[in-house]
Amino acid sequence: MKEDKYVNERLMRDRISILVTFDKTYIKPFRVMIKSLSINNPKEAFHVWLLHSAIPQEDVLLLSEYCSAHRMTLTTIDVDRALFHNAPISKQYPQEMYYRLLAPWILPKSLDRVIYLDPDILVINSIRPLWEVALGDYSFAASSHSGVFEIVNGVNRVRLGNEHDYFNTGVLYMDLKKIRLIGDVEEIFSCVREREGELLLPDQDVFNLIYGSQILQMDDSIFNYDARYFSAYVFKSKGRHDLDWVLKHTIILHFCGKQKPWKKRYTGLFSALYKHYMILSDREGVYSIR
Amino acid sequence: MKEDKYVNERLMRDRISILVTFDKTYIKPFRVMIKSLSINNPKEAFHVWLLHSAIPQEDVLLLSEYCSAHRMTLTTIDVDRALFHNAPISKQYPQEMYYRLLAPWILPKSLDRVIYLDPDILVINSIRPLWEVALGDYSFAASSHSGVFEIVNGVNRVRLGNEHDYFNTGVLYMDLKKIRLIGDVEEIFSCVREREGELLLPDQDVFNLIYGSQILQMDDSIFNYDARYFSAYVFKSKGRHDLDWVLKHTIILHFCGKQKPWKKRYTGLFSALYKHYMILSDREGVYSIR
Repeated sequence: MKEDKYVNERLMRDRISILVTFDKTYIKPFRVMIKSLSINNPKEAFHVWLLHSAIPQEDVLLLSEYCSAHRMTLTTIDVDRALFHNAPISKQYPQEMYYRLLAPWILPKSLDRVIYLDPDILVINSIRPLWEVALGDYSFAASSHSGVFEIVNGVNRVRLGNEHDYFNTGVLYMDLKKIRLIGDVEEIFSCVREREGELLLPDQDVFNLIYGSQILQMDDSIFNYDARYFSAYVFKSKGRHDLDWVLKHTIILHFCGKQKPWKKRYTGLFSALYKHYMILSDREGVYSIR
Repeated sequence: MKEDKYVNERLMRDRISILVTFDKTYIKPFRVMIKSLSINNPKEAFHVWLLHSAIPQEDVLLLSEYCSAHRMTLTTIDVDRALFHNAPISKQYPQEMYYRLLAPWILPKSLDRVIYLDPDILVINSIRPLWEVALGDYSFAASSHSGVFEIVNGVNRVRLGNEHDYFNTGVLYMDLKKIRLIGDVEEIFSCVREREGELLLPDQDVFNLIYGSQILQMDDSIFNYDARYFSAYVFKSKGRHDLDWVLKHTIILHFCGKQKPWKKRYTGLFSALYKHYMILSDREGVYSIR
């Protein structure tokens, strides 16, 4: 009886689409991210789209089981190399670099929006506000870490000659329908070809160059919190965004930078939280709402 | 089909009995503790016994619902004041101080063992190793924080004239059957009467004085980890008990001392983890295994 009510309630809500792209080395962080998404969104159903090229079939199957145990359908797309016959591909610019940029043309036409998430994150509150973001005329929504490191932002703005803030592409809301209208696969390839060599963060740079003006800026302290800079966030908010605030309001904790929280030596304010989710993601038991 | 298998599996395992004693001001930490116990023990069923004297009926009902939503039966016992007609009771030694000590005589005779837990803890792994501790001839199991603060321990040993380490009574395994044989309510009261004035931590002191020699010592880094002293634990273990180790092996994180993790100003290695569980405990949704 109670169960029926829940199923109906869930069916009435729309399923949230999540896009991820990673290789075999990021399977573990991906599982941690999924665990956090599941525990903190117990009433949601998800469809996860994984664009990849070299993850072995047995790993794909395990991931599929893992997702399904967390109320998520996983669809994996082993991306067709033919799409890249015209692309500048090298060791520095591997094919995988383009997946996020080309997702609107790789994902099924019937899919009209998706949330892209890097695997090095924890989702610690309901993700629905991101799913229901009001884009207006924009095609994307993303956050900039400008407030937390003004200098980096300034450098990138000059480097790329942009008018807008430098966006972090680890968390992206994408209106696929609109992007298919405004974007162009060939334009992406030629942009990379023209700028080859001067781009420090290839796909994030290309993303900013091509789509920068189409991006609605979201509050990074809620949608893409850079876990390295707690003190800077506290300072910027005049003390309001203390730890209690973050854990209550921040939706996405993003472990940016080279020091990754799954490494032994990682210490940081959110290290115990991340490592606890690692342990949870290793356990057999999975959770559902009741 | 899968569900049946699970129910059968659960019925085959014994239900774990948990004892708590607190007043109204500790309801919130208790809910956090219950949430952590539930999420990290998804395959267990629990019976929680709350000994109290002044928690209002409406709060008791809410707690009861909360526990039941987490696969736990809550039985509250409003302790009979008649039991204390012969006890030295004062503002310094309130009746509630005796609940943990007298639990074997307050709890039903049919209950033969119980795990006592302070409400200022997180249970971050399976609690079954504590439930299945092999007592041998002992009647209790508890941990000492001697290794992490030798000095405090030395002081207490001299102060109380004990031969054994000074035990922390925040986490206790109690063999109620044995204690009912070796212990005596009047002895507890007279011990307090004799030592009145010289006891700094009344009930923990009494506990050590009366039962010290009956206590099996358990590894505090697993069963009663003092969350203030991460560095000391790392040092003591020659680096082995780093953060990854703790999150994987420690069962009970105990937030000892005056700085409590639910306070705004609390900062500490486990602050984000605790505060995240606070947020989880405030949410409507509850979790069950599937």
